[in-house]
Amino acid sequence: MLEYFFQGNRVSHESRLTRELRSLLHSRRVAAMGTTGDEGVPFVSMVPFALAPSLGCVVIHVSGLAVHTRHLKARPDVSLLVMQPEVEGEPVHALPRVTLQGQARVLQANTPAWEAGRAAYLHRFAEAEPMTQLGDFMFFAIQPGSARQVAGFGAARSVDEEELRRVLGPAGP
Amino acid sequence: MLEYFFQGNRVSHESRLTRELRSLLHSRRVAAMGTTGDEGVPFVSMVPFALAPSLGCVVIHVSGLAVHTRHLKARPDVSLLVMQPEVEGEPVHALPRVTLQGQARVLQANTPAWEAGRAAYLHRFAEAEPMTQLGDFMFFAIQPGSARQVAGFGAARSVDEEELRRVLGPAGP
Repeated sequence: MLEYFFQGNRVSHESRLTRELRSLLHSRRVAAMGTTGDEGVPFVSMVPFALAPSLGCVVIHVSGLAVHTRHLKARPDVSLLVMQPEVEGEPVHALPRVTLQGQARVLQANTPAWEAGRAAYLHRFAEAEPMTQLGDFMFFAIQPGSARQVAGFGAARSVDEEELRRVLGPAGP
Repeated sequence: MLEYFFQGNRVSHESRLTRELRSLLHSRRVAAMGTTGDEGVPFVSMVPFALAPSLGCVVIHVSGLAVHTRHLKARPDVSLLVMQPEVEGEPVHALPRVTLQGQARVLQANTPAWEAGRAAYLHRFAEAEPMTQLGDFMFFAIQPGSARQVAGFGAARSVDEEELRRVLGPAGP
């Protein structure tokens, strides 16, 4: 009975965190993207992102001239922090956030994956359409393999690839 | 005359960007911190930060158990993204932001630098005082050596160490 109680508690706790994770990824439009540069120096830049559930990926659209793009071409490892923004006058230490650890790959123009990624991105960012006409911009798909979610004080957990794939899609029944 | 005009224009443009940079660093309380982990894998996490003008540094307070702390102890290179948060219904691509590239060092307890860093941090985050009593938390000073500021479309620039040191302090006359 006790075990049942705890088990029920644990399941309900996990599904609240899952809902919060889905809400973060679906409501936030920018991430802080970490890449590794020459000699292992870290670099963080802001990237607008969209979710492409059919690819099981996050999609970004970046300039070939940008530092982060050079980094991603040299090594595909990427870290994406998505967080609730701070609110003036309110404490910040427990802000809900998630760090996705993944691998980036260029979506080759005019392939089905590129079409899906482009559609997902422009669905979220219609205003970016003119930039997709520029030859030096490209889409990357980022496949998250794991994540670390912080949903408040003492509410941190690891998230596996299967759950990540699930939360990238729409909410279930 | 023409040269004078352009020069005047350039100076005025730079000082607007300097003001925006100071405003970002003084008004935002959290940064996305990039560190480099094992085998060069990037990692980004949220850190509350304070400015310590007397040290010419940014100060953070982190748990010895956290992943980013392990990374910083192994290599001091750090990247800090500070950005204006997105606003619902408004475009995000041109959000003002800055990436500081710097070096982190532990502030040894009870030294003058630690006192200065601790005071700056608790001035911004009085609620963090109980955490400073925990043995496994520590202060790091991050000395920015360069930065990349984006103040809107087509308004990106590099910022040198001297200007960074200046904007970490209060606004001049």
